[in-house]
Amino acid sequence: MQQIEICFSPELIHLYDLRGKIVVVVDIFRATSTMVAALANGITEIKTCADLDECRTMASQGYLIAGERNGIKAEGFQLGNSPLAYLTGEYEGNQLAMTTTNGTLAISKSSGADEILIGAFPNLQATVSYIQSRKKDVLIHCAGWKGKFNLEDSLYAGALVKALETSHEAEDDGAIAMKSLYEKEGHDLKGFLSQASHAKRLQNHNIDSDIDFCITLDLFTLVGKVENETLIAVENW
Amino acid sequence: MQQIEICFSPELIHLYDLRGKIVVVVDIFRATSTMVAALANGITEIKTCADLDECRTMASQGYLIAGERNGIKAEGFQLGNSPLAYLTGEYEGNQLAMTTTNGTLAISKSSGADEILIGAFPNLQATVSYIQSRKKDVLIHCAGWKGKFNLEDSLYAGALVKALETSHEAEDDGAIAMKSLYEKEGHDLKGFLSQASHAKRLQNHNIDSDIDFCITLDLFTLVGKVENETLIAVENW
Repeated sequence: MQQIEICFSPELIHLYDLRGKIVVVVDIFRATSTMVAALANGITEIKTCADLDECRTMASQGYLIAGERNGIKAEGFQLGNSPLAYLTGEYEGNQLAMTTTNGTLAISKSSGADEILIGAFPNLQATVSYIQSRKKDVLIHCAGWKGKFNLEDSLYAGALVKALETSHEAEDDGAIAMKSLYEKEGHDLKGFLSQASHAKRLQNHNIDSDIDFCITLDLFTLVGKVENETLIAVENW
Repeated sequence: MQQIEICFSPELIHLYDLRGKIVVVVDIFRATSTMVAALANGITEIKTCADLDECRTMASQGYLIAGERNGIKAEGFQLGNSPLAYLTGEYEGNQLAMTTTNGTLAISKSSGADEILIGAFPNLQATVSYIQSRKKDVLIHCAGWKGKFNLEDSLYAGALVKALETSHEAEDDGAIAMKSLYEKEGHDLKGFLSQASHAKRLQNHNIDSDIDFCITLDLFTLVGKVENETLIAVENW
């Protein structure tokens, strides 16, 4: 058996040894869900940017630019952080530059890992299948909310621990706890997450349909992977 | 309703505003359980020390000294970190100086709170009753394990959120998650915690009876409270 563990915040990632591991970065509402949706709908690559200014400079290089701060589309950006914007195929063939409040930070802080994947419910089973083909230990790196534990990222982590239980043993207490929580609450993610602080924030932005998308399982069969600081789709492994 | 939230690690406590709140510091295996056991069995006050050397200097001032590192009694100390040592009443009337790996750090990092309590299962209901008499928001500060989330502290936090649900609303995602987890696993704490990394470490030290004590509910009716950097028992409120 390989091992699997969970880091609940980028502020704790320095406590973990990433070497030799697959790190799965997760920011369910909405960065990593949007990334997966974009890759599954023809975006050829995604550059994650540390801030809005860096992202803006990518526009001159032909990139579409997507950015939000605190859940709202940033001024001068073509796209915000809604996964639904990509589903029509309108942006097929484009490169995308993207910055988000928490997700980008978690990706940049995952450097040093053997491989970095992007986790989301809409491609959970594909991610499971990819990981099981690799025979490596896994660390799930939750983007959290301003450094704190958040419910949607942690529940995804629990779902991934559960789905990998035949190949990966829960190595730390976080993995044990979140697997158990997902077993209890996973049948009604929407109901349970509606209590979450972040879901309440999102409700204020009228993006209930975004939430529905972000917690839908297995719409896509690709894996999102960071290679050379660029996020790409992997479709065969 | 007041609010209740959970900080899972002393490494995240800077993200929280402690002002006006009751902070409940919890280090179930075994620091705060041992503190409660000591206070309930005649120890008049407990000084928490940052390190073993500071603790040693207290011996010359007439204090009993208790210290462990990584679960084992430190050299030259009268007591380790077993709560059972106090149950005979042998140390009644003594002052105690104590240092532990994680618990002491969490207490010192809780300064700035309106009140600091020590949480443990053996006086859970007393702590609930005290808090409900105070009409203040609550932050549960888990000592964790070397900065990481741990299962026993988090489950205590869930138990406290659950027990306070008539007076305190779960303010953050951690409180929502741990309340749900406690609802699922609280009926068999020992079985669930036996999977935990820390419990496995403790098993190596042959302290199964310590674990039994630390997860027993409501043996004592006092509250452990830090006043002027000294931990004392509060028996009436």
